[in-house]
Amino acid sequence: MLSIPDLIRKKRDGGRLTDEEVRFFINSVTTKKMQDSQIGAMLMAIWQQGMVAEETASLTREMMVSGEVMTWPDEWKRLMVDKHSTGGVGDKVSLVLAPALAACGCKVPMISGRGLAHTGGTLDKLESIPGFNVQQSAEQIQKILASVGCCIVGQTERLVPADRVLYALRDATSTVDSLPLITGSIISKKGAESLSALVLDVKFGGAALYKDLQSAKLLAQNLVDAGNSLGIRTGAVLSRMDGVIGRCVGNSLEVIESLETLKGNGPDDLMELVTTLGGMLLVMTELAPSLSEGKRKINDAVIGGDALSKFEAMVEAQGSTNETARTLCSPGADYFSILRKSKHQLELTAPADGVVLGVDGLVLAQVLHKLRAGRSKAGEQINHSVGAELLVSCGQRVQKGAIWLRLHYEDPAPSSVQLDLLQKALTVGEEHGNTLIAEVLLPPGDGKSN
Amino acid sequence: MLSIPDLIRKKRDGGRLTDEEVRFFINSVTTKKMQDSQIGAMLMAIWQQGMVAEETASLTREMMVSGEVMTWPDEWKRLMVDKHSTGGVGDKVSLVLAPALAACGCKVPMISGRGLAHTGGTLDKLESIPGFNVQQSAEQIQKILASVGCCIVGQTERLVPADRVLYALRDATSTVDSLPLITGSIISKKGAESLSALVLDVKFGGAALYKDLQSAKLLAQNLVDAGNSLGIRTGAVLSRMDGVIGRCVGNSLEVIESLETLKGNGPDDLMELVTTLGGMLLVMTELAPSLSEGKRKINDAVIGGDALSKFEAMVEAQGSTNETARTLCSPGADYFSILRKSKHQLELTAPADGVVLGVDGLVLAQVLHKLRAGRSKAGEQINHSVGAELLVSCGQRVQKGAIWLRLHYEDPAPSSVQLDLLQKALTVGEEHGNTLIAEVLLPPGDGKSN
Repeated sequence: MLSIPDLIRKKRDGGRLTDEEVRFFINSVTTKKMQDSQIGAMLMAIWQQGMVAEETASLTREMMVSGEVMTWPDEWKRLMVDKHSTGGVGDKVSLVLAPALAACGCKVPMISGRGLAHTGGTLDKLESIPGFNVQQSAEQIQKILASVGCCIVGQTERLVPADRVLYALRDATSTVDSLPLITGSIISKKGAESLSALVLDVKFGGAALYKDLQSAKLLAQNLVDAGNSLGIRTGAVLSRMDGVIGRCVGNSLEVIESLETLKGNGPDDLMELVTTLGGMLLVMTELAPSLSEGKRKINDAVIGGDALSKFEAMVEAQGSTNETARTLCSPGADYFSILRKSKHQLELTAPADGVVLGVDGLVLAQVLHKLRAGRSKAGEQINHSVGAELLVSCGQRVQKGAIWLRLHYEDPAPSSVQLDLLQKALTVGEEHGNTLIAEVLLPPGDGKSN
Repeated sequence: MLSIPDLIRKKRDGGRLTDEEVRFFINSVTTKKMQDSQIGAMLMAIWQQGMVAEETASLTREMMVSGEVMTWPDEWKRLMVDKHSTGGVGDKVSLVLAPALAACGCKVPMISGRGLAHTGGTLDKLESIPGFNVQQSAEQIQKILASVGCCIVGQTERLVPADRVLYALRDATSTVDSLPLITGSIISKKGAESLSALVLDVKFGGAALYKDLQSAKLLAQNLVDAGNSLGIRTGAVLSRMDGVIGRCVGNSLEVIESLETLKGNGPDDLMELVTTLGGMLLVMTELAPSLSEGKRKINDAVIGGDALSKFEAMVEAQGSTNETARTLCSPGADYFSILRKSKHQLELTAPADGVVLGVDGLVLAQVLHKLRAGRSKAGEQINHSVGAELLVSCGQRVQKGAIWLRLHYEDPAPSSVQLDLLQKALTVGEEHGNTLIAEVLLPPGDGKSN
């Protein structure tokens, strides 16, 4: 067996690590036998030299088994599903998708993350709801899946400890954007959920990690390959992320928009993402014979109210009172009787007549982030009430002076520079047209892509 | 100014670091603002992407000024010289060269290292002499240079602290063999000696770090460029390192061979290295008009006994008693009345008639290292009496049964496997011929290369 410096040297020189060597690497990371300087050098060597599909598969598997791997009753095994998104602005898909899938008979042990930098985190959004507890033990998760069918929780300490070490160092060492490292990190965590099927929402565009379709597609293929190598049926969607998903950004506001969607009033783009991602999972779990049939089933679960019932049950199962859950999920709910509303609102108006060509989601998210909708480092307090409502959608004709954005803020108030940035995030001009979902990747032999 | 992760990213992507960025990097290392993981990643990024000459010059300069830089009286400035060798087997050049240069009027503040792995260290050799103290303050060094003209000392704590950090991590992170990192490490330390001229003995061959002339030449060119960029006239010699320099390997035995050389009985190869390296320095300090004249002056200083007097004075100035120094330097000295002699000797004989084609210096050094002539990690105790005397030289005709090697050992005794390795280090067969010094590089405009 090689020593740790020998292992680093092999990857440094572009060698292909064997399964045993990858195991030794991840083991040395988990047991802290590898010094931080050595991990930094190895991460950079991987960044520089890459990994072939077999190495990435091996990396993913070894990271997965570095900690606890969840187990499920036999009768659920075919039904265990989850979704992962590479991160967007206003991305509340999980809040609608998890209960919709549960309503269709799936079991959804959704392990989500917190927001960092400009993208929001599903856990932060749910914590806008008083009493909602994202920290659930493996036993609790199993209990909630038995009674409700879905839960949305944080990663436990015992899942994928190797990723916690590597993830913390990747940011400091500028090795975040490495295909094998991204793939290992994302898929190992999903692997530890012991899924039957997984769908990935890989975003591209101005407000996404990857700016162009080509590089997003390469990541999607890596993720799909690694997922399938673990025996999880894995598919991916490549979706455009330039503006905002739906109309709301910010934690409380996105919960409200999710509830409105579950009550049948969802924006088209959000519904398209939910039905496509959900439809794919129904195909992969053989709960639907084709993608179009899968999409229809998910749509019915959302529009028909079954998903809303699941959401209500989930909120209560995860610690909120029955009254909180029931109030939020009732028709015509007074959301702000439960959720915190920001003390101040401010409206921005269109500078000219024309068609809304775009809203720069990245700028919007960055300003909201500074107003404390998000955090700059792990553990930082955020303000759930801060956010923005978009009052126009792309392609819509507006007149000069029409209100296009309502900003919700508390402390700090937006500076004039920030208001100027927000105002410039709106582009008004002539008609254009870009479809939201650019491409759909299904595992070999699964349904039809329509 | 970039953040540390931005700086790593820039080098990761093959960017060229500005002077300010290199300064920030080295500053962050010295002040411990850069985490070990980040240093590891940066070292690997430099290994992968390399550095252009300007960056290497900048790295060298910033490492040099990370600590104390020595200062000398104005009248010495033109005369300050030193030599650096990339490491060989039986390499006792410094012990003869430093006093020979002092005898020719140079000031030689030679800062040497200890042995690690198979190559020996000049400081270890000198410590075979009772009372010899390699730890001297900057003030003491200046005093010895004033009275004697040369000293051979260890690095002080205050010189080039950035190198101490980087050097320690390079081994663990497999980033030792990087041209800019080697160059920065070697030349920054010489730069902190505030030299006027520097000569580098870059070795290539089976017992050297670089096995082939081509890669050694590339290193030599990097070192020469970096030295000249600091305003030090810098030249290099590319010398073959397959066997042993001179006839002795091991600390006490090499001191004896050095003393015999200073008494005019030196082996040809050692004398060739000493006169060439010394001659180059005399040309570069303008103490000789040409290399042939410089070599002649050095040769005269060694053969005529002036260098021996300087050595005697240096030994006394560095802490040994007058009697120790005088006894060692007297004609027909009983060396083992002063130096420790190993308790046991063992002789190996030639297995067949023929011409000595070669002795594998690497194998010889590795076996002696295991018999405790050297250390495997910093701080380990060594046995100065352990070593070997070679009783034949290349090209010499030997008869079967003739003694070719005398091994000096104590505890542990050599195993049969080790004896077998030693025996196989000798190759007897038909005539061949390789010159010791393959090439000489002088700074532009310095003398003639003959």
